[in-house]
Amino acid sequence: MKRRSLLSLAAGTSLLASGCASTQTSSPNAPALQGTGDLGVVIERAQGALTLINTSRREIVGRVEGLGDLSHASVVFSRDARFAYVFGRDGGLTRVDILGARITHRVMQAGNSIGGAISADGSLVVAQNYQPGGIKVFDAATLELLADVPAAMPGGQRSRVVGLADLPQRRFIYSLFDASAICIADCSNPRQPQITTIENIGQQPYDALVSPNGRTYIAGLFGEDGLAMLDLWEDKPQVRRILGGYGRGQKPLPVYKMPHLRGWAIAGHHAYLPAIGRHEVLVVDTTTWQEVGRIPVAGQPVFVMARPDGRQVWVNFSVPDYNRVQVIDTPSQRVLQTLEPGKAVLHMEFTPRGESVWISCRDDNRVQVYDTHTRQLQATLKVDAPSGIFFTARAQRLGF
Amino acid sequence: MKRRSLLSLAAGTSLLASGCASTQTSSPNAPALQGTGDLGVVIERAQGALTLINTSRREIVGRVEGLGDLSHASVVFSRDARFAYVFGRDGGLTRVDILGARITHRVMQAGNSIGGAISADGSLVVAQNYQPGGIKVFDAATLELLADVPAAMPGGQRSRVVGLADLPQRRFIYSLFDASAICIADCSNPRQPQITTIENIGQQPYDALVSPNGRTYIAGLFGEDGLAMLDLWEDKPQVRRILGGYGRGQKPLPVYKMPHLRGWAIAGHHAYLPAIGRHEVLVVDTTTWQEVGRIPVAGQPVFVMARPDGRQVWVNFSVPDYNRVQVIDTPSQRVLQTLEPGKAVLHMEFTPRGESVWISCRDDNRVQVYDTHTRQLQATLKVDAPSGIFFTARAQRLGF
Repeated sequence: MKRRSLLSLAAGTSLLASGCASTQTSSPNAPALQGTGDLGVVIERAQGALTLINTSRREIVGRVEGLGDLSHASVVFSRDARFAYVFGRDGGLTRVDILGARITHRVMQAGNSIGGAISADGSLVVAQNYQPGGIKVFDAATLELLADVPAAMPGGQRSRVVGLADLPQRRFIYSLFDASAICIADCSNPRQPQITTIENIGQQPYDALVSPNGRTYIAGLFGEDGLAMLDLWEDKPQVRRILGGYGRGQKPLPVYKMPHLRGWAIAGHHAYLPAIGRHEVLVVDTTTWQEVGRIPVAGQPVFVMARPDGRQVWVNFSVPDYNRVQVIDTPSQRVLQTLEPGKAVLHMEFTPRGESVWISCRDDNRVQVYDTHTRQLQATLKVDAPSGIFFTARAQRLGF
Repeated sequence: MKRRSLLSLAAGTSLLASGCASTQTSSPNAPALQGTGDLGVVIERAQGALTLINTSRREIVGRVEGLGDLSHASVVFSRDARFAYVFGRDGGLTRVDILGARITHRVMQAGNSIGGAISADGSLVVAQNYQPGGIKVFDAATLELLADVPAAMPGGQRSRVVGLADLPQRRFIYSLFDASAICIADCSNPRQPQITTIENIGQQPYDALVSPNGRTYIAGLFGEDGLAMLDLWEDKPQVRRILGGYGRGQKPLPVYKMPHLRGWAIAGHHAYLPAIGRHEVLVVDTTTWQEVGRIPVAGQPVFVMARPDGRQVWVNFSVPDYNRVQVIDTPSQRVLQTLEPGKAVLHMEFTPRGESVWISCRDDNRVQVYDTHTRQLQATLKVDAPSGIFFTARAQRLGF
């Protein structure tokens, strides 16, 4: 039952029936020569489409349909910031040309997928899958399948894979939900990945993150208290348990939505983490990984995200408090302001230098753009049931 | 005499006679639709030209001539990563369309200039000038002059300006070499900048940097020992003197080239600084700003630059040791390897995720590209007298 509840928590809705839908594209303002540093995509989760946006003009610049079930989708970008790789819930992997507002390649690579990553050199895209479990390695230019790594367990079953992130040198790290393990796949020969498995890391890792500098990998544990951490700069990384008091706590609380670890904020020498089930953001020292504070907030936090300069942390919440967003001032560790951008705030994305934040309000069918300094609304964009927002600057960051 | 020696140290060569040269452009591989996330420019310091490069293909993709005296040039990028703003030594400010491989706008804005910055919203470009002293504010789209801020001193003279960097909300910070002051220009009304001056910061600030998170501004002092630091997150930043032992030391040493502060590396909780005149890199704790170690290196360091993940710091040197580059491993704080990329190594630039580093070897007329993990040579590009290398990912970083 735990497995089932995790799946539905992570997906947010039941899975929609979806095959490889027909490809329809449109581009209201077909761009000629233009830079791609200020572009991005917004997931239209109900329509299986992408809205393409420009963060300088704060406008919609195109739309791409035919991406299948995007009820829990994530996106990485090519090294040149032109192509978006969209990992759909239904196992669809789609390569979208943002400049051309069209799909260039699309494969149904699994029955149930949970995201992906791209190598630093831009040559390999990897998907992490629930059904069948394992990872698959693709050529980023063609989506040709290069390797299928099944994450097989002793009984012959495959484990579901979570918490995938890129590491330097065409390596990828991920966790096995069903096998209490963390794996590192060295894809320097992408047709024959070499897998290193670190076992007994804790029960049911359900998501993970890599710190912004690529050094620390942290997996949240669904089956027990605390988190599993690896120092990836060690020659042979050993798992270390941290924050035993984090997570389910003495008295398990109802959890309406599992927080996304990828949203954790590392700002200065502190990490800001969503407390699971509690109306709190935890403050953790990133040297000792001990909790050093708790900040009361307006609901169960989902995404806890640092503005790029680390001076603010923005927080959204699970139902029933998901009409709010709170802004934490990190030097004072206090809530600076509470905003109400709209109904069902699902995601936030900062512009690369942090002057603005884009917030998706699913049930108001709009994306709200705020000035992060004044908290004034800068723009409202009409988007059908928006969820994830991803800007091309992610192409240039580690650990996505 | 100090003024004169600083100028010649900073310039590296005497100034070349140069007006607004005719614009000639060429583009061997005129690009159609393409992303701009993996592009960059290399300064051809003798020819007054830019070589345009692609970091995915590791190739030259174009060339732009007619930029005047680029003997000490610097570059910032537009928010969309399409346009390069080139600040020439002769006061020329040129807006180059990288995709089109052509100059779109060019103005001679001063007699002697030392660089510039761009606002986070991409709307304003600011130049810092030696002659006449002060800063000038330009519309980033047109290079229309919006404001001339003279940096006037009590006697009516203008101070030379150094250490310019962007701050959030259309603000810029810079130091006055001749007036022992640091200024913050609020350009929210760009035609009437509001200037806040912090006085008595120390003698002759000669360069400065902003930490990667935009919080800390540090100016090096030519006229006395130590450095001046501001915490920009304070409501009214107060100057604080740090590293009294840094710089000239007990026994002044001959200095062949002033280190560029902009090259300082902040990696983890440490900053790595070039010791002036000594064959050492200083290690400084970024919480206390106390020196905590010294790493012996192969010459007088010029650029001390962290790989984006902070695990390595790469160092180049002044004459006579400028055929070498050393790689410091930050966890052990030891030199990992010494490379000899070519004659007269002037600059280095990491790809955004740090897998490669590009190194200009002026007197070999080539740029060498290394894999930072294996330190194997990945490519050699023929470029006439290359100096500064700038990748478009800078558009997405604070404090450049």
